[in-house]
Amino acid sequence: MNKNKIEEKIANIKSLDIDELNDLAEDIRHILIDKMSKTGGHVGPNLGTVELTIALFKLFNFPHDKIVYDVSHQSYTHKILSGRLSNYVHGVEFDKLSGYTDPNESAYDNYTIGHTSTSIALAVGMAKARDLRGSDEKIIALIGDGSITGGMAMEALNNASIIKGNLIIILNDNDMSIAENHGGLYEHLRNLRNSNGELENNFFKNFGLDYRYIDDGNNIEAILKTFSEIKDINHPIVVHVNTLKGKGLKYAEENPEAWHWHAAFDKETGEYLDDSGEKGYGVYTSETLLEMMKNDSSIVAIAAGSPASIGFSKEKRIKAGSQFVDVGIEEQMAVTLAAGLAKMGAKPVFGTSTSFIARALDQISHDVALNNLPVTIISCAASIYAMNDQTHLGIYDIANFSHIPNLVMIAPSSIEEYVATLSYAVNQNKAPIMIKMPGKIIHEEPRDYKFDNYKFEIIEQGNEIAILALGTFMTLGKELHHELKNHGINASLINPRFVTPIDEELLSNLSKSHNKIITLEDGILDGGFGEKIAAFYAKSNIRVYNYGFKKEFIDQYDADEIVRKSGMTVENILKDLGI
Amino acid sequence: MNKNKIEEKIANIKSLDIDELNDLAEDIRHILIDKMSKTGGHVGPNLGTVELTIALFKLFNFPHDKIVYDVSHQSYTHKILSGRLSNYVHGVEFDKLSGYTDPNESAYDNYTIGHTSTSIALAVGMAKARDLRGSDEKIIALIGDGSITGGMAMEALNNASIIKGNLIIILNDNDMSIAENHGGLYEHLRNLRNSNGELENNFFKNFGLDYRYIDDGNNIEAILKTFSEIKDINHPIVVHVNTLKGKGLKYAEENPEAWHWHAAFDKETGEYLDDSGEKGYGVYTSETLLEMMKNDSSIVAIAAGSPASIGFSKEKRIKAGSQFVDVGIEEQMAVTLAAGLAKMGAKPVFGTSTSFIARALDQISHDVALNNLPVTIISCAASIYAMNDQTHLGIYDIANFSHIPNLVMIAPSSIEEYVATLSYAVNQNKAPIMIKMPGKIIHEEPRDYKFDNYKFEIIEQGNEIAILALGTFMTLGKELHHELKNHGINASLINPRFVTPIDEELLSNLSKSHNKIITLEDGILDGGFGEKIAAFYAKSNIRVYNYGFKKEFIDQYDADEIVRKSGMTVENILKDLGI
Repeated sequence: MNKNKIEEKIANIKSLDIDELNDLAEDIRHILIDKMSKTGGHVGPNLGTVELTIALFKLFNFPHDKIVYDVSHQSYTHKILSGRLSNYVHGVEFDKLSGYTDPNESAYDNYTIGHTSTSIALAVGMAKARDLRGSDEKIIALIGDGSITGGMAMEALNNASIIKGNLIIILNDNDMSIAENHGGLYEHLRNLRNSNGELENNFFKNFGLDYRYIDDGNNIEAILKTFSEIKDINHPIVVHVNTLKGKGLKYAEENPEAWHWHAAFDKETGEYLDDSGEKGYGVYTSETLLEMMKNDSSIVAIAAGSPASIGFSKEKRIKAGSQFVDVGIEEQMAVTLAAGLAKMGAKPVFGTSTSFIARALDQISHDVALNNLPVTIISCAASIYAMNDQTHLGIYDIANFSHIPNLVMIAPSSIEEYVATLSYAVNQNKAPIMIKMPGKIIHEEPRDYKFDNYKFEIIEQGNEIAILALGTFMTLGKELHHELKNHGINASLINPRFVTPIDEELLSNLSKSHNKIITLEDGILDGGFGEKIAAFYAKSNIRVYNYGFKKEFIDQYDADEIVRKSGMTVENILKDLGI
Repeated sequence: MNKNKIEEKIANIKSLDIDELNDLAEDIRHILIDKMSKTGGHVGPNLGTVELTIALFKLFNFPHDKIVYDVSHQSYTHKILSGRLSNYVHGVEFDKLSGYTDPNESAYDNYTIGHTSTSIALAVGMAKARDLRGSDEKIIALIGDGSITGGMAMEALNNASIIKGNLIIILNDNDMSIAENHGGLYEHLRNLRNSNGELENNFFKNFGLDYRYIDDGNNIEAILKTFSEIKDINHPIVVHVNTLKGKGLKYAEENPEAWHWHAAFDKETGEYLDDSGEKGYGVYTSETLLEMMKNDSSIVAIAAGSPASIGFSKEKRIKAGSQFVDVGIEEQMAVTLAAGLAKMGAKPVFGTSTSFIARALDQISHDVALNNLPVTIISCAASIYAMNDQTHLGIYDIANFSHIPNLVMIAPSSIEEYVATLSYAVNQNKAPIMIKMPGKIIHEEPRDYKFDNYKFEIIEQGNEIAILALGTFMTLGKELHHELKNHGINASLINPRFVTPIDEELLSNLSKSHNKIITLEDGILDGGFGEKIAAFYAKSNIRVYNYGFKKEFIDQYDADEIVRKSGMTVENILKDLGI
């Protein structure tokens, strides 16, 4: 592969003929497979859209024309075509890019995006602004079939008709979101594909939108033919493109769920390069729930398009049978479905990445908490040590949810405490419970974890200084406790366990024999656990030292570095205490 | 009207013939008009569904069978038919009920509901739980056409197909949400109605759902005919019922927007009984924006189904022309549309009741704030003095949103400061801004309000005690300041204006000459403004006194009483200070 030659092709993309474009597609697919085999990445979505992206760059004038990629986890070819080839070819710039679009990287990227189903609304807004100012940019949204059933995508389809000028919504339909698609609409999309787009009953037309279908969405010639006809269209249109997820990598074509995102792999065998992964919280979640399901047919595990977050592999989904529901990428539906289940006496457990749960704040508050229904919600990847993309930050859950009345929020600090928390939550019916998944795999000798009275747990009773070490940061709490002992200070060490409600009785008792309180938490300080403690003691002479993270969007960060910068080290805390 | 006779009819509803059912409908409509003319209420939705509800009670066995009313603002007939007639007939129990369903009132009410688009998801959950336990309840969701385009309603339509037993989704289609409907789907619903439900292209069938249509949804006989046929159905079905909003009250039929909710009125003339209403923040909002629009075609006002919140009456919507967009009840779409507009240089302003904005937390964070787009969001009805339904609480916005990075949140304390804030927000492009609408109409001599450096404003410079009086509670701050002076204490009085970011420089300066800080805010304490201040001073010897509200769901409350109970009186604060 000759990098300069590829760069030349890209520079001249407008004048390439079909054969040359196909060559370019082959080059890029080769580069992508090579890159992702070394670094991991969104293998499936990116391999499926190579030809489509090339065709769009051939026809449209980016960045004057605007394209918005839904989730933007299929934007690698876009990045290569817009000046970032070097980052995909092994060399000095390799691996320096976000896996998502990012306006700081390139004027070709319009938004930082990592959540699903936003692209149509963004595109409608851009088209509306264009029409108000009277300019002529073509506006494109490219959205996958997994994202199209997200509520806000359908809200935007419903409003696309406000646009009286050019607006092109590309549905990249590979019949597969992250796991297999769920929901009645997917049957309809299949029927549309089978009819070559000619079915009379058409979901998109119901929203007043024009519609075209491209059956071979990995054939550049076919794509160009249709898009040449509609690119200058003066009203909104949906172009439904049938593509093959993972195209060109046989393991990915055969097992699209496993290869949606995949860690570094051996190109020949498809095996993981590093297979030393410890059993994570997801697997403990599904194992615990499946065990409980054996004797309780009322337990229902709910996923929203990413069953792996709670460890429900295909095999385990089959084992759970009708006690497992994947609603697709629809967090709102997942939470309110759970409310409906709980109302009728079932025991629902919903879990997904906490940054996606943000989409269901209102449902957690209005449908679950206001009705005080015993729903269990697992806040996954809820740690500074979880995903380090600015779109997927795990450190906002306490601030997002801990102020909701009735909601009990528990942050266990080990695998064993987590499993006990999950069992407790599912089997109680006093309140809705959110469980904050710890950020590190920490084992401990299981003890009798108590939940019923919402009390903090005293690990070590001391005086003068009390350390409230929440969740993941219990390890730091223990180290700090130990080091204080070395300095002759017998501090108290507390496992709060409950983010909310706070244990006011224990806090009052602490004030009798302590004058400094330290809080450690795996979340931002604003609206966090520490602030609740600081506010509790605000009128007293107790000094409170809150440790957590700044509210900011941090990207591709090194977790240890952020923890250090945030002063969450024994050394720094001792310094703050004047020791 | 003879109450006992009506009660008898209700008790025997199963054996009434059509004429008797029609008589009952007439009685109930009479009662509803009489009641709502005295107390106000959701006139339009309730008058439209009298016959439909009677028919359902005739056929189904509530509360064994379950019905979920979307928003539940059309549930008055349901309440009358389920033992609460007395509350609708002038007497001792008159006016004691929630305007929404409430399980604490009756076993016939399944949920406390006040937000839209949740009913289908709840019903799917209930049907799923029923099927897991093998019982036989019929499950019904009743949803209006205004709510059906809310994203989560469509998410639930997509997942209704997981139910393999009885599930009846009634679409109460009166061709009118709160204001006129917007979006492409409404044209489709019109076509469906015009085809008597026989159109081949059918939105609901696309989700794999069965479908029936009832053209005269205010005719009990017609309703009974269809429902008799489908009530025992063994799969999900949508029954599309065409009803007349405001039926039986000519003012309401003629002007459904004004009569969706209406205050007490004269039954004969339709005039307001109390017409002394002051010009509110909504009207100031639209007037300010329309004035700015005259010279700036890039300003876009966005509503989500309730344009009145930002004062856009029909007349003003016409005046704004293409610079006004109502997306329907779709808060997620509204926010992300605004992000798209801002990206292309337009100046979007979105406003609705703050309890509905909760539905767009993720969009505000991910689409707007992460991309740092200058979108203005008006948090309406954001006060203890706003709506006093537990489903519409206005005191959660600071906790819900003030921890979002990049987002600037401003709480003005008067009409004049509010108008200045709005003008500033729309014309700046440094950050997304949320404006917290004050809860009381307070006028003041306008001064030079400064926003650019995000600084708190010192109203009175003193020492010892500093009062940080945010937004609505500036009035209390002034009173307290005055009373402290009477006690010989020259306190500082601060108008923070910015909920976030907090003015750390000013806070540091205060600590030089003050030892007590008082915070007053129109919101809950958890995750509130006061906690940020308490946390700022947590390590110092400054005592912080936070005043705000407990996190709890309070219903039909008296605002002054809650304020008093929360200790937000001059007298109580002096006591707390030991004065």
